Amino acid sequence: MQRYKCILSYDGKGFAGYQVQPGKRTVQGELEAALAKLHKGTAVNVTASGRTDSGVHAKGQVIHFDSPLSIPVDRWPVALNSMISGEISILTVEKADPGFHARFDAVGKEYRYLLYFGKHRDPFKRNYAFHFPYSLDLKAMEDAAGHLSGTHDFSSFCASGTEVIDKVRTIEEISFAKKEDGLVLTFKGNGFLYNMVRILTGTLLEVGRGERHSGDMPALLEARDRKLAGKTAPAHGLYLWEVFYGDN
Amino acid sequence: MQRYKCILSYDGKGFAGYQVQPGKRTVQGELEAALAKLHKGTAVNVTASGRTDSGVHAKGQVIHFDSPLSIPVDRWPVALNSMISGEISILTVEKADPGFHARFDAVGKEYRYLLYFGKHRDPFKRNYAFHFPYSLDLKAMEDAAGHLSGTHDFSSFCASGTEVIDKVRTIEEISFAKKEDGLVLTFKGNGFLYNMVRILTGTLLEVGRGERHSGDMPALLEARDRKLAGKTAPAHGLYLWEVFYGDN
Repeated sequence: MQRYKCILSYDGKGFAGYQVQPGKRTVQGELEAALAKLHKGTAVNVTASGRTDSGVHAKGQVIHFDSPLSIPVDRWPVALNSMISGEISILTVEKADPGFHARFDAVGKEYRYLLYFGKHRDPFKRNYAFHFPYSLDLKAMEDAAGHLSGTHDFSSFCASGTEVIDKVRTIEEISFAKKEDGLVLTFKGNGFLYNMVRILTGTLLEVGRGERHSGDMPALLEARDRKLAGKTAPAHGLYLWEVFYGDN
Repeated sequence: MQRYKCILSYDGKGFAGYQVQPGKRTVQGELEAALAKLHKGTAVNVTASGRTDSGVHAKGQVIHFDSPLSIPVDRWPVALNSMISGEISILTVEKADPGFHARFDAVGKEYRYLLYFGKHRDPFKRNYAFHFPYSLDLKAMEDAAGHLSGTHDFSSFCASGTEVIDKVRTIEEISFAKKEDGLVLTFKGNGFLYNMVRILTGTLLEVGRGERHSGDMPALLEARDRKLAGKTAPAHGLYLWEVFYGDN
């Protein structure tokens, strides 16, 4: 038995999220079906760095799985891609230590949120960026991002009903990159709570629109009340961009 | 009654091409249904610069239609987009002379063909660029493009069974723009025959792969035989990029 670490990309549009759910089409379900086919019907469980919500995309999700098959690592992506929908692409497969764990060994993650500023909607971006044809005060957003970065209890930025007890996380970076016709928000941190990036994005957009003040961020964090933060930005603008491990 | 010239973009993936066909979902069908809704059930015919095939995209298709409604031109896109699928976006609507004709007045067109070179497929490009993970001799392709540019009888590059008699067209430009992970082929000309851009692309790719010589292009044109040219490149890499009129 060999443990493999695998990096994959997927278009979240057609899936009810990453994690297996009965009766729903999920990324994990497709992956496990493809692996079962490759293993002549034997079930193979995959473990991801974490789940992604319905409609959320991934450029660099990481999973691990065990297999007895002696397929060279550079052939694994070809073999898996031939058995799975084009909405998913296996980018790399590498041999991992038997103790490697895609979720527990992850030391950080990068998410990106894509905004499209065009006056009218773009058919090619409709599932891949949030259409936001309004002017934004980027300076105010950067100020707010400065307050939100660092180690805080992010209860105000976490969907209510989450089981997780400890809501302290460290955000290492929130940055903004202007594109020709949009904006990319990058979030790097040691971990993110349920809907956290989307609530951060929604709140930052309200700051950018002048609907709330960047200086209110410390009090918002302090309140630990989801109801006080901004709207949850739509799923289709969000990408799990990269997962970081101690060794790279 | 006012005649309007309208520029629109569409994702060709979900359509059986531009032109209305009984029982099929088409771009023209969706446009005419949206216009009929806006005109409280009265049919409004739209005329395009030309049809596009099933799966072919448009960044700047042009149509004309007549309407008695007194909607300001900057509100027309908003009104139409609110009544039509997100796969289509009305970009601009402007008042045109009563004699303006989207097809007969067009003096040229630009098509672009997108190639994606990535080693493995990209889920976000699967419907929007032709995945071609092979090296290409761009110099040979440029040589071939030089031979193909100009005024020629393009019978060899036209799907067989086309009704059009006169197959002489002028290609003003075939150019190649390297991207980080792909190539954009641009074709500008006074008109293109059925499947012509896709057959030109398929032939240029065969030249780029060393499967045929750039110097064979003149003889290939001379032969006027579709069977001698290259494969028809897939529809999903092709974009009707812009339509040119005498006034712009």
